[in-house]
Amino acid sequence: MRYATRGGKRVRAFLVMESARLHDIAQAQSIWPACAIEAMHAYSLVHDDLPCMDDDDMRRGQPTVHRKWDEATAVLTGDALQALAFEMVAHPDVSASGDVRAHLGLTLAQAAGGQGMVLGQALDIAAETADSPLTLDEITTLQAGKTGALIRWAALAGPRLAEADESALASYAEALGLAFQIQDDIIDVTGDAQAAGKAVGKDAAAGKATFVSLLGLEAAKRRAQSLVDQACDAISCYGDKAQSLQRLAQFVIARQT
Amino acid sequence: MRYATRGGKRVRAFLVMESARLHDIAQAQSIWPACAIEAMHAYSLVHDDLPCMDDDDMRRGQPTVHRKWDEATAVLTGDALQALAFEMVAHPDVSASGDVRAHLGLTLAQAAGGQGMVLGQALDIAAETADSPLTLDEITTLQAGKTGALIRWAALAGPRLAEADESALASYAEALGLAFQIQDDIIDVTGDAQAAGKAVGKDAAAGKATFVSLLGLEAAKRRAQSLVDQACDAISCYGDKAQSLQRLAQFVIARQT
Repeated sequence: MRYATRGGKRVRAFLVMESARLHDIAQAQSIWPACAIEAMHAYSLVHDDLPCMDDDDMRRGQPTVHRKWDEATAVLTGDALQALAFEMVAHPDVSASGDVRAHLGLTLAQAAGGQGMVLGQALDIAAETADSPLTLDEITTLQAGKTGALIRWAALAGPRLAEADESALASYAEALGLAFQIQDDIIDVTGDAQAAGKAVGKDAAAGKATFVSLLGLEAAKRRAQSLVDQACDAISCYGDKAQSLQRLAQFVIARQT
Repeated sequence: MRYATRGGKRVRAFLVMESARLHDIAQAQSIWPACAIEAMHAYSLVHDDLPCMDDDDMRRGQPTVHRKWDEATAVLTGDALQALAFEMVAHPDVSASGDVRAHLGLTLAQAAGGQGMVLGQALDIAAETADSPLTLDEITTLQAGKTGALIRWAALAGPRLAEADESALASYAEALGLAFQIQDDIIDVTGDAQAAGKAVGKDAAAGKATFVSLLGLEAAKRRAQSLVDQACDAISCYGDKAQSLQRLAQFVIARQT
């Protein structure tokens, strides 16, 4: 059975499973880092939705954790999910050598932490009160942390489990991560809240600089398509086995949620 | 140079360094898990101080992170510190085998997460709105997570780095962790805020069950002393080398901060 994304959810787990499959890693092994990256992503969503952060009421069509329960529960839920992510990559059932598991843990910490995802989120918050809107370079740096770092880690899980060359999937992940964020900005402008399962139009209403506000909607769509083409080319060395990751890249810019 | 605690701070790092010294692990190695456990502890303090949690204004004699900056910064600071802790135990400079580093990461995640420290914190919050005060057993379970899990991890870092028997230091840590929490409850009743560098008297004012409210002040002091004696006995197998950890145990119940 092939692991599949459902309506754009669990893209990160899919990346782990498929990049592992490219390197002939068994699903019984890759399911651990796949669950780890979803736990890490889920923690970031729970904390990002907090009143002191993005203050969102809905997520994946459900009330956010602090709305359903309370803020303390949301803080602790996120904290526990982050720890769970590290537990799952370090677990002996990953059936990889200690060096591989330690390296997965180290790189996951770097991707998630103060030079990765947390930095991206902090830059995003700082942008809200900045005197002038961010430039394209600054937004690209912001997204590389906020979205790109975990996507990159997920795409590299396969070669890391196999102790194989990472360069093709690194190029794929870089282009995919940026395309992903551009599409998020497009959905914020064009999407509807019910399909997205979360609030939309918030960035535009807040006057935040986004890829769409800086490039214009049509140019943003073209840029996303060009990045997806780059991503697909980058993994052509894997031949037919790369098709599902290439389809994922096409899906990333087709999705409306 | 011997690593030393200052005024009761960095007890966890001291435990790592000293348990490592008992197993002839070089400071250049043990400094990594020592810093990791302090980063983990610091994250827990920053989040615990949040308005939605304990709502504290002062910590270590300074304004808490959300008071000095804002809540979003405090959430992100804690998140980044937790990731940093995992980065430091998995780091190749720990100069331990991959298996050891992965095991340190796995056990740190278990100690910090939803079955460890986060569970203890959640039980503590639940206790505030419970219909009846906690029993002694329930408070002991609560503290085993909230304080005990990280103390245990710190005390076991040495034998884990050396791949040696953990049982003596496990017994030491169990008794020490409980003594530590009892003394915290004693300080909350008898301490003064300036010396403690944080608010005191909060538990008593909130009518929360503590070791002191359940046992009485004098019996709590006797129980703490008896646990410290147990802790010291547990590591007597290490001979004179154990003296600094035995002094630490005595210090834990002598401290006023």
